[in-house]
Amino acid sequence: MGVRSSPNTGMMGSFFDSLLEADFPAIGGLYPVNPKVDEINGVRCYKTLLDTPDPVDHVISQVPAAVVPELVDQCVAKKVRSIHFFTAGFSETGDEEMAGVEEAMIEKLRGAGIRAIGPNCMGLYVPSSRLAFMSGFPTEPGNVFLLSQSGANAGEIVHGLVSRGIRFSKAISYGNGADLRAHDFLDYAAADPDSEVVAAYIEGVQDGRAFFDALKRCARVKPVIILKGGRTQSGSLAAHSHTGSLAGSIEIFDAACRQAGAMRAETMDELHDLVVAASTNTRLVSGRGVALFGGGGGGFAVLSADAIDREGLTVPKMPRSAVEKMREYVPVAGSSVNNPIDAFPPEEHLEDMLRLVATAQGIDMMFMSPMTGWRRPPPGASKQDSKRDADLKQSALKQGAESPPDPEAAVKQMMENATKAAQQMSDLQNDTGTPVIGILRSGRMARMMGQSRTAMSEAAYKKGIGIYPSVARAARTVAQVLDWKAYRKGLPDIFSKSQSS
Amino acid sequence: MGVRSSPNTGMMGSFFDSLLEADFPAIGGLYPVNPKVDEINGVRCYKTLLDTPDPVDHVISQVPAAVVPELVDQCVAKKVRSIHFFTAGFSETGDEEMAGVEEAMIEKLRGAGIRAIGPNCMGLYVPSSRLAFMSGFPTEPGNVFLLSQSGANAGEIVHGLVSRGIRFSKAISYGNGADLRAHDFLDYAAADPDSEVVAAYIEGVQDGRAFFDALKRCARVKPVIILKGGRTQSGSLAAHSHTGSLAGSIEIFDAACRQAGAMRAETMDELHDLVVAASTNTRLVSGRGVALFGGGGGGFAVLSADAIDREGLTVPKMPRSAVEKMREYVPVAGSSVNNPIDAFPPEEHLEDMLRLVATAQGIDMMFMSPMTGWRRPPPGASKQDSKRDADLKQSALKQGAESPPDPEAAVKQMMENATKAAQQMSDLQNDTGTPVIGILRSGRMARMMGQSRTAMSEAAYKKGIGIYPSVARAARTVAQVLDWKAYRKGLPDIFSKSQSS
Repeated sequence: MGVRSSPNTGMMGSFFDSLLEADFPAIGGLYPVNPKVDEINGVRCYKTLLDTPDPVDHVISQVPAAVVPELVDQCVAKKVRSIHFFTAGFSETGDEEMAGVEEAMIEKLRGAGIRAIGPNCMGLYVPSSRLAFMSGFPTEPGNVFLLSQSGANAGEIVHGLVSRGIRFSKAISYGNGADLRAHDFLDYAAADPDSEVVAAYIEGVQDGRAFFDALKRCARVKPVIILKGGRTQSGSLAAHSHTGSLAGSIEIFDAACRQAGAMRAETMDELHDLVVAASTNTRLVSGRGVALFGGGGGGFAVLSADAIDREGLTVPKMPRSAVEKMREYVPVAGSSVNNPIDAFPPEEHLEDMLRLVATAQGIDMMFMSPMTGWRRPPPGASKQDSKRDADLKQSALKQGAESPPDPEAAVKQMMENATKAAQQMSDLQNDTGTPVIGILRSGRMARMMGQSRTAMSEAAYKKGIGIYPSVARAARTVAQVLDWKAYRKGLPDIFSKSQSS
Repeated sequence: MGVRSSPNTGMMGSFFDSLLEADFPAIGGLYPVNPKVDEINGVRCYKTLLDTPDPVDHVISQVPAAVVPELVDQCVAKKVRSIHFFTAGFSETGDEEMAGVEEAMIEKLRGAGIRAIGPNCMGLYVPSSRLAFMSGFPTEPGNVFLLSQSGANAGEIVHGLVSRGIRFSKAISYGNGADLRAHDFLDYAAADPDSEVVAAYIEGVQDGRAFFDALKRCARVKPVIILKGGRTQSGSLAAHSHTGSLAGSIEIFDAACRQAGAMRAETMDELHDLVVAASTNTRLVSGRGVALFGGGGGGFAVLSADAIDREGLTVPKMPRSAVEKMREYVPVAGSSVNNPIDAFPPEEHLEDMLRLVATAQGIDMMFMSPMTGWRRPPPGASKQDSKRDADLKQSALKQGAESPPDPEAAVKQMMENATKAAQQMSDLQNDTGTPVIGILRSGRMARMMGQSRTAMSEAAYKKGIGIYPSVARAARTVAQVLDWKAYRKGLPDIFSKSQSS
């Protein structure tokens, strides 16, 4: 592997550092190339690509665009296999001369059998090879494949989904897509045994027929979720400045996705949520009845019911027999055992109550708010039951309400709560067959909540439980999955098969 | 002030603790009442309300519903002025007998000239009197008045808006509203000189005519933003279980709001955003042209332009003269100086460039992403300009990308950046007359971002600059404000007058 670098390129620092974090033995060696210095961060540096001692598989170009033709000649002479052009300033600028340079260099590379990624992109993230294009990407591999025309969005998708518990098989930022482009990556993803779910951020499709055919092949066998940048007039103009993309008709794009059986996301948040859905139990949901259990008091329950209803899902009332049974567990005042259920039973009755709700008629899924917040030791209270009740209700109010006396102990307790809550949701789902979906709202204790949220999401994800940041987003995701399943009728079932993650 | 408490009531612990945090001299004394104990947390406790030594203004009832009639008799005998029933278990349960108890107790209190808040609610937050119903509410008073049927939602609104920089004049959670209800609080807010913006969470209106008349009076002179819980069928059923509210026709409610000149929020997020808008420069926006400056790379710019366009706003291209001028400041590769502007000029040109954009034809407002993240010291770079460029671009990528070596120094730096960024936005707005709206996306560095976001929001709010968590939410808020202004035609101008905050 060879690297050529120049201090003139803006993002070099961060990008180059992420390469230095790579596991050299795993990727077979890293060779910085720079005519002006002898070493970079303690790694020996070569004057030109031709001076590197060993065969080179993959070249990462960070030289200015003006120097690229010379580098391309060296790549041909060195017989490398692929090159990634981090370098920008080609066809995306709208400058005809630079578009011509881009075309010429790709032609020369193709003639030599060298494939190119970019230009104007961040390139490859391959955790199993310890290759990353941003600092902080995990080295642990996973089952999600990402292709993205934008490097910044690729970073946002990786970081955002990692904090939801997801890990990646490979991610590719491919910018202008002058050689390798969306259809090549879709074909790769379809065949790649490590990739079970495919996410894509696309600004423009250069070859509509090839793209649509590859999308059909891939979406047939794996869940594919596409976020299209430049859906509007303003966005499409911005996309043209960004990656030189011509957006084309959004109606045709949407219809093609639907026909292929792929899922469209309208926003970055939707892309994240749908990837979580496709790789967790959310993909198993088969009806519209939601039981909402706990989470934030009566007013929260009302707004949550509104959010669920707005997405075309329902909040079925509990059958009278279930209501009567639950009334044995919880007092009347300040609680509701109809659906939404805003009640905190004593701990010894909690499991029974959850199972009662999960198996009630008309309930197709549970929305639950796991408790991960810090719990203050309960104040002096006289009876065991009311103490527990006060503690639980208080804990719900307290989540995010103030700083605990000992931050370290609080973090430890939250991590334990996260593992326990994930187990509880998983057990409930296994026992009842009803998908249990977690709602993890952001709180005021941002300092600790960050760690606690990630811990909770990761613990749940490992057990196949999807976690969403609000009832509204969970409801929207479920509605989209149901719609997706409906228009895939006749295609292979990609939703019920197990996902190893 | 008298307090009666019982360990049987769920939320007592947290609620009572928030009272103990109150400033006793400021509110004239706090008297816990409980027949079973002599003191609570070191404060002397009385057997009954009648045993308290001084006249009592306000009683907070935390006794079980069954004991309420006895407490009401004591209130009449003690000649108190008002009572807040934290106690639940009345009309909201759907039980006819308990609804009768509620009616009887309110009648008795009215006969004695005692006003009641609740039952089934959290009561009063009055920062200037150091009275709060949840721990962690700030003691610093502000200019926003809140009325809420739900205590949990009142807490969420206060905590959420406080983290956006907002402070409250008064907040009232009034639950079932058996005596004092929405129209009483709206009339109070309209006349209250400390309240400049009014926010409301309402589940049901008991007296439609009185409500609508009060809303008209209040919305005529102050911005009023209403979130209605129970807009859907599921939500309306949940609202009935929660506060005994009958939701009524949502179409009539919406039409009444519009006719009164009040603003409806559809979700909790919208309520937060619209209150920020009404109390900052967002209310001054008068056109639809948005300039988007920086924030997260080309792909982010594309999705942002889509989000802006989707709300009916525009992203006008920069005039050729402005583009040519900007090209003198920033290199072509990897940047765009058309709108959205994805380019990092050297620091000495930043102010000129911002002013060029803010005053360009067709630009009615600027969306800017202030930099609050941690900046790593720049790597060894040869030229001053490219070093600065590398530093800035890298800093944008780094925001939320990894942990810094020294968290304390990083927090300090972020706080300084927050103050500086707020000043920069405020100067730009003052110099150009173009409203500058801040976009502060959440990052991965949640641990520090929490503090930094709040610091940034507060610093900006103090200068009258609104900050929103995403381009989509900022765009939606601006579009709603423009709509609001349009349908208020003919009513007094409440948007351009200065808001002291």
